[in-house]
Amino acid sequence: MDKLKWGVESHPLKSIPNHKGNVLHGLKKSDIGFKDFGEAYFSCISPGFIKGWKRHKEMTLNLIVPVGLVKFVIFSSKENGEPDQSNNPIEYIIGREKYSRLTIPPGLWVAFHGLGDCESILLNVASHEHDPDESDNLEIDELDYKWT
Amino acid sequence: MDKLKWGVESHPLKSIPNHKGNVLHGLKKSDIGFKDFGEAYFSCISPGFIKGWKRHKEMTLNLIVPVGLVKFVIFSSKENGEPDQSNNPIEYIIGREKYSRLTIPPGLWVAFHGLGDCESILLNVASHEHDPDESDNLEIDELDYKWT
Repeated sequence: MDKLKWGVESHPLKSIPNHKGNVLHGLKKSDIGFKDFGEAYFSCISPGFIKGWKRHKEMTLNLIVPVGLVKFVIFSSKENGEPDQSNNPIEYIIGREKYSRLTIPPGLWVAFHGLGDCESILLNVASHEHDPDESDNLEIDELDYKWT
Repeated sequence: MDKLKWGVESHPLKSIPNHKGNVLHGLKKSDIGFKDFGEAYFSCISPGFIKGWKRHKEMTLNLIVPVGLVKFVIFSSKENGEPDQSNNPIEYIIGREKYSRLTIPPGLWVAFHGLGDCESILLNVASHEHDPDESDNLEIDELDYKWT
């Protein structure tokens, strides 16, 4: 397990080989980082595109990328909830070939970038159901980060 | 919602268009068919391959196919747990272009076939964690079903 800062953790996941198609572990109720089950949904990201910034107030994210490759960038926030750009962000890549679960507690600013040549697919096993009032959003250019 | 026989249900799911990559609904805690969260995992299936037969004793399956196309075949079981081939099976196809959640209660015999030209990916949001003693398995040719 990689303990990153601000409570963010990366847990390597098993991919069990099978000639008919592998079985890919995801998230178990008994896993470290599991809080509660609210909703599981997918966010697709086309190559070169970026989704973000979003800050959840209550939701813990458990992010798994079974298809493609995705770079996550995570900023901390100030006491008033605004992004704190005085600290370096976390930069972390996960995907089918770097197969891990990224656990992100509430309160952080998150954006993600589709890498590779094909659409990537991100599963979020979230602790809460989607609620538009539970998150804050900023446009991608409102934070000073050089996406390459 | 499609109410099939033996408690099997299919719930159409929303795919929310976005030029950066769609958001695909999965399963919410408040959805009909949700029992409990035990584990979320993926099973990949290469085109033309079949995985099965498996019968879970306790686990309710919530199956979602965000990539590709998969045909499920479901037989009922006799009182002793053996497959009951005197009843016609359920045959049901789901996938990215026929985007639904298939809810399968415990006690049924299930196999699935990868359709299309590419690997399909199946998410199971299961009510129980994986336990090898919780399911029975049969070889694919032990049931009389014509896979085409």
